[in-house]
Amino acid sequence: MNSRQLTIGLFGFGVVGEGLYKVLEQTPSLRATIKKVCIKNPGKKRNAPATLFTTDRDELLNDPGINVIVEVINESGPAFEIVSTALKNGKAVVSASKKMIAEHLPEILEMQKIYNQPFLCESAACASIPVIRNLEEYYDNDLLHSIRAIVNGSTNFILTRMFEDKLDFKQAVMLAQQLGFAEADPSLDVEGWDAVNKWTFLLTHAYGIVEKTEHIVFNGIQNINLSDAVVAREKNYEIKLVAQAKKLNNGKVAAFVLPQFVLHEDPLAFVKNEFNGVVIESSFADKQFFYGKGAGSFPTASAVLSDISALRYGYRYEYKKLYYHTPPVLTNDFYVRAYLSFDDWKNIPRDKFEWIEEWHAGDRKYLSGVLHFEHLKNDSWWKENQVSLILMPDAIIEDIEIRKLKKKSLELAGILD
Amino acid sequence: MNSRQLTIGLFGFGVVGEGLYKVLEQTPSLRATIKKVCIKNPGKKRNAPATLFTTDRDELLNDPGINVIVEVINESGPAFEIVSTALKNGKAVVSASKKMIAEHLPEILEMQKIYNQPFLCESAACASIPVIRNLEEYYDNDLLHSIRAIVNGSTNFILTRMFEDKLDFKQAVMLAQQLGFAEADPSLDVEGWDAVNKWTFLLTHAYGIVEKTEHIVFNGIQNINLSDAVVAREKNYEIKLVAQAKKLNNGKVAAFVLPQFVLHEDPLAFVKNEFNGVVIESSFADKQFFYGKGAGSFPTASAVLSDISALRYGYRYEYKKLYYHTPPVLTNDFYVRAYLSFDDWKNIPRDKFEWIEEWHAGDRKYLSGVLHFEHLKNDSWWKENQVSLILMPDAIIEDIEIRKLKKKSLELAGILD
Repeated sequence: MNSRQLTIGLFGFGVVGEGLYKVLEQTPSLRATIKKVCIKNPGKKRNAPATLFTTDRDELLNDPGINVIVEVINESGPAFEIVSTALKNGKAVVSASKKMIAEHLPEILEMQKIYNQPFLCESAACASIPVIRNLEEYYDNDLLHSIRAIVNGSTNFILTRMFEDKLDFKQAVMLAQQLGFAEADPSLDVEGWDAVNKWTFLLTHAYGIVEKTEHIVFNGIQNINLSDAVVAREKNYEIKLVAQAKKLNNGKVAAFVLPQFVLHEDPLAFVKNEFNGVVIESSFADKQFFYGKGAGSFPTASAVLSDISALRYGYRYEYKKLYYHTPPVLTNDFYVRAYLSFDDWKNIPRDKFEWIEEWHAGDRKYLSGVLHFEHLKNDSWWKENQVSLILMPDAIIEDIEIRKLKKKSLELAGILD
Repeated sequence: MNSRQLTIGLFGFGVVGEGLYKVLEQTPSLRATIKKVCIKNPGKKRNAPATLFTTDRDELLNDPGINVIVEVINESGPAFEIVSTALKNGKAVVSASKKMIAEHLPEILEMQKIYNQPFLCESAACASIPVIRNLEEYYDNDLLHSIRAIVNGSTNFILTRMFEDKLDFKQAVMLAQQLGFAEADPSLDVEGWDAVNKWTFLLTHAYGIVEKTEHIVFNGIQNINLSDAVVAREKNYEIKLVAQAKKLNNGKVAAFVLPQFVLHEDPLAFVKNEFNGVVIESSFADKQFFYGKGAGSFPTASAVLSDISALRYGYRYEYKKLYYHTPPVLTNDFYVRAYLSFDDWKNIPRDKFEWIEEWHAGDRKYLSGVLHFEHLKNDSWWKENQVSLILMPDAIIEDIEIRKLKKKSLELAGILD
């Protein structure tokens, strides 16, 4: 097979776009050149020849000499228009727009089929960690037990600083902003939107599941309290915002993004500050752990580069788990063991708990107990009134285990009550 | 693309072979069945129908109904014969025989070209970690700065126990043997042979370098002393047997397998006991870290399964770095910063050092200094007479840096001498 020469039309010339331009300039062996860059603001000074730039997207999208469109812009709407037109016009696409991909997943899948063009997006999740490629190629459908990941560096930075420097949430957010690890408006990261967006399409690559973001239960870290970090430390846990998916015994998949206590020996505990990490459990292989920088200009550019490099050899996602297998369905029919901290008992619907395992009075109260996941899916009490819900380690309890565990717990409760 | 039905001829029915047989039986969706198993000892009781077994390899190799040969046997000679005949007879091959692959790398590459059949060997290095697939597919030639890895679980277990339980080398080896992490004759692991075998073909997948094992400088951990662990702890290091390769500024590659001090914050320090880990540095991406079980029946079977699964979709290594680029050459023209401990100064050729940075008298003496790598390549004093050589962190010093560093060091030496 010969590698083909790539002629790129680039959308966006921020830190990622400019970094990409420089490497491609300096590395002719990559056989990929940027022909034109579409930008929004023509007045801004750029470190590249003026002739390279245009504000007219059609100059890129309608140029038959351009065979690859790379888009590293921030806005979801325009990104989708660019991607759609590019695929329709017979161009391969590399995209870093996680929000756009999460919002338009079914259309993007459909267009890849209709127009028979590759769409690669390794940089959109965990940036420099090749998680999509490995899920696509390496972990066969029937062998993938679970995947647990830290996919948002911003919240991980904040939690690490709360934990290690004993900062409260607001101080930690401010520090993250000062160091460039959080946006001026940090809510997209802090409230879990960014993580659940990534999780939406990672589920497609992991299990062939195509689901709308709004059907996935998630939360961010906005209600995590310094007192939660104190409890975590007492119990020898750390707190992480963990995106996870697990194949249950009934073949269905439990998937969500929630704060969770993790054990020190859990590889996810190794993931500090702005880093990302992915733990994959598959048949026979035990745990595997992938770790690297999950965001930022350089890690993102590196993932875009790897996609470009893959395009030279005709690589595309085949979505084998979706098209060659019957993908498992998402389910909310399971239980979770959770810790909650709160100011007032009245905000906690105790009747929703199967059983409570521990509770603690005081200024900031907390309890841990078991509840059906539907109560998180359908209600929102656990996100409101400063209630902080954190899953316990190994939180998922399957239907078939619940009776046995409940009996054991009621015996204990007889002593405790 | 349709996935094809695989009919497998399996060589070897030890723990890996039997595990593989069971999963394939239980997972019809993998569309791969074992038609015949070739074993050496027909008298042994097996957990599978007797009709499955034969001692005649030609029954597998000449069966036109078998399209994949999987070999998980231990002997290098027979493994090579099996692989050669299988490729020649138009069968795809999955092999776990690292020693055989290292010894016959040029022939195996040649046969893949001539007979146009895939040869996959993910299980042969770092077992459950998909390191070969990622080096092949994800890390482009020009973007891979360095790769550092713990590729031998046996020695890593021994070093971890020496470090954490303060066992001496012999006690740690015995413990490893009791727990099944070291062979009755541990020399293949302990003296670094296994690691350098793996490193030989990982260099091919990383950089396109095809080199004989005997041209790669290596050592094991046989001379590592409990006193070295004490020094390491004082300096806040751990000791690991690190296989590494680094692209130098002149475009050539430095590659070797040697014990090394690693910093606690180095991801390789996270790799304890029988686990393996790989740290990859590439342009822009900073460090990436892959971690998992590197040996044993289940992790090996899982990697074999992933190869089988990949074959269904026509996957093969393209060796792009070897065939589509001019691969870099291996060089010994650089310097390393090393620590040596020893009993007698007379075993240490002090004139070979560019300069010495630290020395320590006492019963077990030690020093650290800088020497040209040719002295390790051409001489063997550093492996003999109980001399223990451990590289310092960031050991490689390039030619262009040496004058500046030497000058700085001589200034210091003026004070010290």
